[in-house]
Amino acid sequence: MSEEGSGTVETQYFTSFKSPDKLVLKSGEKIGDITQAYETYGTLNEDKSNAILVFHALTGDAHAAGFHEGDKNPGWWNPMIGPGKAFDTNKYFVICANCLGSCKGTTGPSSINSETGKPYGLSFPVITIEDTVVAQKKLIEHLGIEKLFCMAGGSMGGLSVLKWTTLYPGSTSCAIVIATNHRHTAQQIALHEVARQAIMSDPSWMEGDYYGKSIPARGLALARMIGHITYMSDKSMEEKFGRKLIGKEKVGYDFSQDFEVENYLKYRSDTFVQRFDANSFLYLTKALDYFDLAEEGALVDTVKKATASFLVISFTSDWLYPSYQAKEFIKAMRAADLDVSDIEINTSYGHDAFLVEVEGQSKLIKHFMERIEKER
Amino acid sequence: MSEEGSGTVETQYFTSFKSPDKLVLKSGEKIGDITQAYETYGTLNEDKSNAILVFHALTGDAHAAGFHEGDKNPGWWNPMIGPGKAFDTNKYFVICANCLGSCKGTTGPSSINSETGKPYGLSFPVITIEDTVVAQKKLIEHLGIEKLFCMAGGSMGGLSVLKWTTLYPGSTSCAIVIATNHRHTAQQIALHEVARQAIMSDPSWMEGDYYGKSIPARGLALARMIGHITYMSDKSMEEKFGRKLIGKEKVGYDFSQDFEVENYLKYRSDTFVQRFDANSFLYLTKALDYFDLAEEGALVDTVKKATASFLVISFTSDWLYPSYQAKEFIKAMRAADLDVSDIEINTSYGHDAFLVEVEGQSKLIKHFMERIEKER
Repeated sequence: MSEEGSGTVETQYFTSFKSPDKLVLKSGEKIGDITQAYETYGTLNEDKSNAILVFHALTGDAHAAGFHEGDKNPGWWNPMIGPGKAFDTNKYFVICANCLGSCKGTTGPSSINSETGKPYGLSFPVITIEDTVVAQKKLIEHLGIEKLFCMAGGSMGGLSVLKWTTLYPGSTSCAIVIATNHRHTAQQIALHEVARQAIMSDPSWMEGDYYGKSIPARGLALARMIGHITYMSDKSMEEKFGRKLIGKEKVGYDFSQDFEVENYLKYRSDTFVQRFDANSFLYLTKALDYFDLAEEGALVDTVKKATASFLVISFTSDWLYPSYQAKEFIKAMRAADLDVSDIEINTSYGHDAFLVEVEGQSKLIKHFMERIEKER
Repeated sequence: MSEEGSGTVETQYFTSFKSPDKLVLKSGEKIGDITQAYETYGTLNEDKSNAILVFHALTGDAHAAGFHEGDKNPGWWNPMIGPGKAFDTNKYFVICANCLGSCKGTTGPSSINSETGKPYGLSFPVITIEDTVVAQKKLIEHLGIEKLFCMAGGSMGGLSVLKWTTLYPGSTSCAIVIATNHRHTAQQIALHEVARQAIMSDPSWMEGDYYGKSIPARGLALARMIGHITYMSDKSMEEKFGRKLIGKEKVGYDFSQDFEVENYLKYRSDTFVQRFDANSFLYLTKALDYFDLAEEGALVDTVKKATASFLVISFTSDWLYPSYQAKEFIKAMRAADLDVSDIEINTSYGHDAFLVEVEGQSKLIKHFMERIEKER
C-alpha cells in the first residue's frame, strides 16, 4: 500500500539568482543561475497555507514520492508522502527540492558553468547548508508561499530544518527534525573525511576534472560502503546478514567475497556510482561537516530565534547521529521556551530508520501536525 | 613511570616447520620454514611454571615491552609489562610473538618464499587465527614450556586466547581475554571489507605484487583511517578533537583539511604506511573475519573443552567489540561450568582502552592472577 499514492510525478525546474543578482554564499563567493529541481505532491490551497517542505538526505533528490514515468521504484520517502499517509496529500501540498551542490537536477559541480560552457568541477564554490536553505527559500517565494505549514527532514535534511527555522523565523508553523544533530561531531567529520580521501585517492578523480572521461568509480564506491555501514546498526547488520556466506558452503580462503554482507556492500556501492556524482559527494559532506548551528555563540541564543513548534525524532540504534546528540539541541530549545515534542523510537534499523520506520514516524507526525492545526 | 621497566630488549627468531614437515593450515594448504619473531621479558623459573604468553592486536608486533636499542618509544604494552606492573617481570617470564601473516619478523606475504627466492605476495596462503596459535604453540614448546601460567590478549589477541584455550586445553592455568568477541559480526566484517577494498583499489597494489616497487600507500592509509575511527569512541574523539580547526580561525571552504581530527587521521595513517605491509593487512583482517569459535556447533560445546580460569575484560565505550558480545561467550563459558571473572570497565576510550586504560586493567589482572596463584 505504501508503494501507492502520489501516482506519476514529474520533476520541475526553477532558475534564480540570474546575473548580476548572484547568490552570495556563506564563503563570500558568488554563484549565479542556480537551477533547482523540485517536485510537488497534492494541491496548494487558495490561501497557500497548506504547504509542507521536505528536505532530502546526503544522496537524495527532489523525487520524494510517486513514480516517474516508466519507473518501478517510487521516490525516497514514498511511504510517508501521499493520500492518507503521514504527509497527507489530500490535505497538504508537499514540496521537495534537490539541494544546492547535488547532481540530481539542481546546480552543482557537475553542472555546466554558463560562463565557461564547461562543467564546474572543483571551480564550483564550496557551499553550506545555509546556502541551500537560502536557495530553497527563493523557490518557496517563487511558488507564492509566504508561510509554510510545516517542514521536515532527516539526517542532512534535519540540519536544513534547524538552519531554516533559525534563519527565517516565522516562515513555518511547525518543523520536524529527524535523526540529526545541531553540529557535526569529530567522529562524523572523520567518517566523511575518509570517504572524501577515498574519492580523491582514485586516479580517475583527476582533481575533480573527470566529466566526459572515466569516473572515479572505485573511490566513490568506497565512500558509499563506509556510508552504508554507518546507516545500519550493528544489530540490523547482524539480523540481515550475520555470517551468512554467498552461495558457498565454506569460506574461499582467498580475497574474493565470502560473506553476504561483503556482497551487499559491493552491489549497493556499484549501483550507487552509476547514480551519484563523486564531486557532489565531496561538496555535500563538506557542507555537513561545516554545519554548526551554534557557530555564532551559545546554542540557546541561536535556537531562541526560532518560533516554530518542533517535533524531534531520534532512533535508539542510530550510532551515526545518536539520540543523545538530539537531546543537546532539544535542551537548548526548551531553555529558549520553544514548543518541542521529543520522541526516541526504539528500533534496530540504525540511522536508516528515518527512511524505513514508517509506522512509528507516521503516527507521531500525524498526531503532531493535528495538534499544530488545532492551535493555529 | 610506565615508560620504564624492561630496559633494552632484543627481538629473537625461531624457525620451525622446516620442509618436509610443513604446517598444514586450516585451509588445507601447507607452508614451511615459518620464522617467528618473539621477545621475552623477565626470567623463566627453574620448573618453567611462570610463563605468560601475550598476543598482540591486528597491526602489533612481538615488541610488547622495553626499548629497542636507540628507540625513543617502548613496546606496545609497556605500561602493562615490567617490574611491579600488571604482568610483573620480577615474578613472571613474559613472551610475545609476532603472529603468522604479519610483517614484523614473522613469516608473512612480504617474506621471501625460500622455494622461489621472491616475496610471497598473494601466493602466501590465507591463514587463520588457529594457524597462528598452532605456530606459537611450537614456539612455546621450543622454549621448553609445557604449561603456561597465563595468556592474555586484547582485540585480535583475545581471539587467539579463545582459540588456544579450546584447542590446547590444559596448556595454561589462566587466560585473560580483553575487548573481543567469539566470532566476527557482519559489521566487523563489513568494516574490514571496506579497508581491504581500499587497499585492492590502489593501482600500486598490483594484485599484491608491489614489493620493491611503490607501495599501495593511499589504499593502506584509507584502511588505517577507518581503523582509527573504530578504535576510538564518539566521546573520546569529541574530547580529543571536537570541532577544533588546524591553526586557522575559520574553515577554508576548500577540500584541504580544516579540522584537527582530519589532520590526526592523515598523520597517523601516513606514519602507519611506513611501518606496515598492505598485504599483511589483507591477510590478518581475513583471518579475523573467518574467526568463529562456534564454527563446529554450539558455542558451549567448544568452550567446554577449555580448562583455564578466565578473566574477561570489556569496555563500555568500545563499539567495535561491544561489551554485549563478550557477554555472549561468557554466558557459554558459565553454562560450561568454567571459572570466569567478568568485568566491564567504564571508560570513554573506546576499543583503544585495552592499550591505554592501564590502571583499571592492572588492578584486575593482578588480583585475578594472585587468586589463580593461590589456587593452583
